[in-house]
Amino acid sequence: MEVTLKDIARIANVSHTTVSRALNDSPFINDETKARIKKIALDLNYVPNYSAKSLVLNRSYNIGLIFTTISEVTASGFFHQTVSGVNSVIKENYNLVVRGIDDYKNFTFINKRRFDGIILMSQSNSDNSFIYYLMEKKIPLVVLNRDINEKSICNILSSDKKGAYEAVTYLIKSGHKNIAIIEGEKGFNSTNERKNGFLDALIENKIPINSEYIVEGNYTVGSGYNAMKKLLKLSKIPTAVFCSNDEIAVGAMKAIFKAGLNVPMDISIMGFDGISLGDYLTPSLTTVRRPIFEVSKRGAEKLLHIIDNKSDEAEKIYISTELVIRESVIKLA
Amino acid sequence: MEVTLKDIARIANVSHTTVSRALNDSPFINDETKARIKKIALDLNYVPNYSAKSLVLNRSYNIGLIFTTISEVTASGFFHQTVSGVNSVIKENYNLVVRGIDDYKNFTFINKRRFDGIILMSQSNSDNSFIYYLMEKKIPLVVLNRDINEKSICNILSSDKKGAYEAVTYLIKSGHKNIAIIEGEKGFNSTNERKNGFLDALIENKIPINSEYIVEGNYTVGSGYNAMKKLLKLSKIPTAVFCSNDEIAVGAMKAIFKAGLNVPMDISIMGFDGISLGDYLTPSLTTVRRPIFEVSKRGAEKLLHIIDNKSDEAEKIYISTELVIRESVIKLA
Repeated sequence: MEVTLKDIARIANVSHTTVSRALNDSPFINDETKARIKKIALDLNYVPNYSAKSLVLNRSYNIGLIFTTISEVTASGFFHQTVSGVNSVIKENYNLVVRGIDDYKNFTFINKRRFDGIILMSQSNSDNSFIYYLMEKKIPLVVLNRDINEKSICNILSSDKKGAYEAVTYLIKSGHKNIAIIEGEKGFNSTNERKNGFLDALIENKIPINSEYIVEGNYTVGSGYNAMKKLLKLSKIPTAVFCSNDEIAVGAMKAIFKAGLNVPMDISIMGFDGISLGDYLTPSLTTVRRPIFEVSKRGAEKLLHIIDNKSDEAEKIYISTELVIRESVIKLA
Repeated sequence: MEVTLKDIARIANVSHTTVSRALNDSPFINDETKARIKKIALDLNYVPNYSAKSLVLNRSYNIGLIFTTISEVTASGFFHQTVSGVNSVIKENYNLVVRGIDDYKNFTFINKRRFDGIILMSQSNSDNSFIYYLMEKKIPLVVLNRDINEKSICNILSSDKKGAYEAVTYLIKSGHKNIAIIEGEKGFNSTNERKNGFLDALIENKIPINSEYIVEGNYTVGSGYNAMKKLLKLSKIPTAVFCSNDEIAVGAMKAIFKAGLNVPMDISIMGFDGISLGDYLTPSLTTVRRPIFEVSKRGAEKLLHIIDNKSDEAEKIYISTELVIRESVIKLA
């Protein structure tokens, strides 16, 4: 049998309303009575009825962590770090709901009654309609990972463009001029950011942009492998390849080895993301570490703050990437 | 303004009760009226109040996908595949709640009011107290991945022991006698299952068990690297190593390369899990593919069936592993 407010009221010899007020810390009940009633509730192992409480407080105790998609174009390490980062600050009285926007045919099931707030790990510009829907429904929202041109929204970002720029600048300073890029998933904002960082570094260093050196990928290992095979067929093979994530880098290295060439002696490889495996590849992967765990953790903290304080506090927070120099890039003489 | 049942009632010119019954497909309302009321609800963009509905139907519309832990000892690929598998069958009217048992200080917040059912991706025997708690609370439950000695519970498993047995038998048939194992996270059931498969294969083939060849790990890349360094210090270095997951295999290969030795010419490496990167390593990884996506998908289907039919249907379902032969194991002359 579930213990109810009435059971507590009977034992405490007070009214049902008094119990309810005491457990909800109402100022109308004195501290002594509150303490006595709370002790009885604890002794009886009373579980508040959250469905009833939800109706009264307008709370669902659900926090949504929504990705653009959780399909395979979302790298596993990235997915795991995002969930871990958010999870590290969401307390146990909340349910953490994890899904992809593409899991919803329409957004009827995403509403204020079902979500106290939403953290959107936004990978694509096509998420904008979802964002406007949430804004219209006045659901507290924090957007991670993608720069939203919307002053009222709290936005936590890693500086991908800057990170890519630094990575490619490092390749150039190492003497490389023939530098290719293998791009990420088409339509993903991160794909454009990283490509723009790549282009900026070339332009700033007055290195002509060779369209043959810009090859499509989709963030999977297989796409890195196939893209690198294309690059290896060019009359002038690049001496360095900037890969838009570490998975692509692993696939690219495989294609190079299979062609009987060496990394980094023949071709230097630069990754992006900083997955834990990268340090254990041979050669170990020079890459750009993205602070995904940090971004996600900060985002969750922000959202809880907005929910608790019912305030907006829109802010744009950038968390820096870090160039991790290992063995897969060589200095040209 | 939210549209309420009253708004629909006013427009349809029927009572509030009739609207509620029509939207819930009550047999007391004729089909024509139902269709008319449903159309009005649709036109008005009516959103059912799930908190209210929850109170009446005793449903939370939350499905829990609970891991033993979502910390780093849970490999990212494994985590991603599990969530994807469950997500592939949970419809959009449900919230998919993802958390680790170790995120809860106590289980007060896990109750029938907050969860319609729970899928437990069980990694450790220490989960039993959680399982008994759920049984006591009569929360519909499906346990994945770990064999539960409890007839009333639906249990979906991959045959890890058999998979490990087949992998090590393959090493033996390839001429290896000095075979080491690097173990998984202590206390995890999968760690024991895989070790038992390893031991069974040796015993059946009358190969003496060398205790120096049994080295601890914890499913991380780093642990594979450190364990392999220990094996490389032995006076008689093994000719093959069975790694309890693919991450360990990547770390072990790194240690071998760093010592100036070759995989598979000097030491053969066998992985376990079948992560997508494995095919792109050099050498590509011979491994045992675990059907994690399948196990998770089947588990979710089972749970939905139990919830909808309010039946128990306890069953133990095994889904086979598959030996994937690639380049990291060599035949000894």
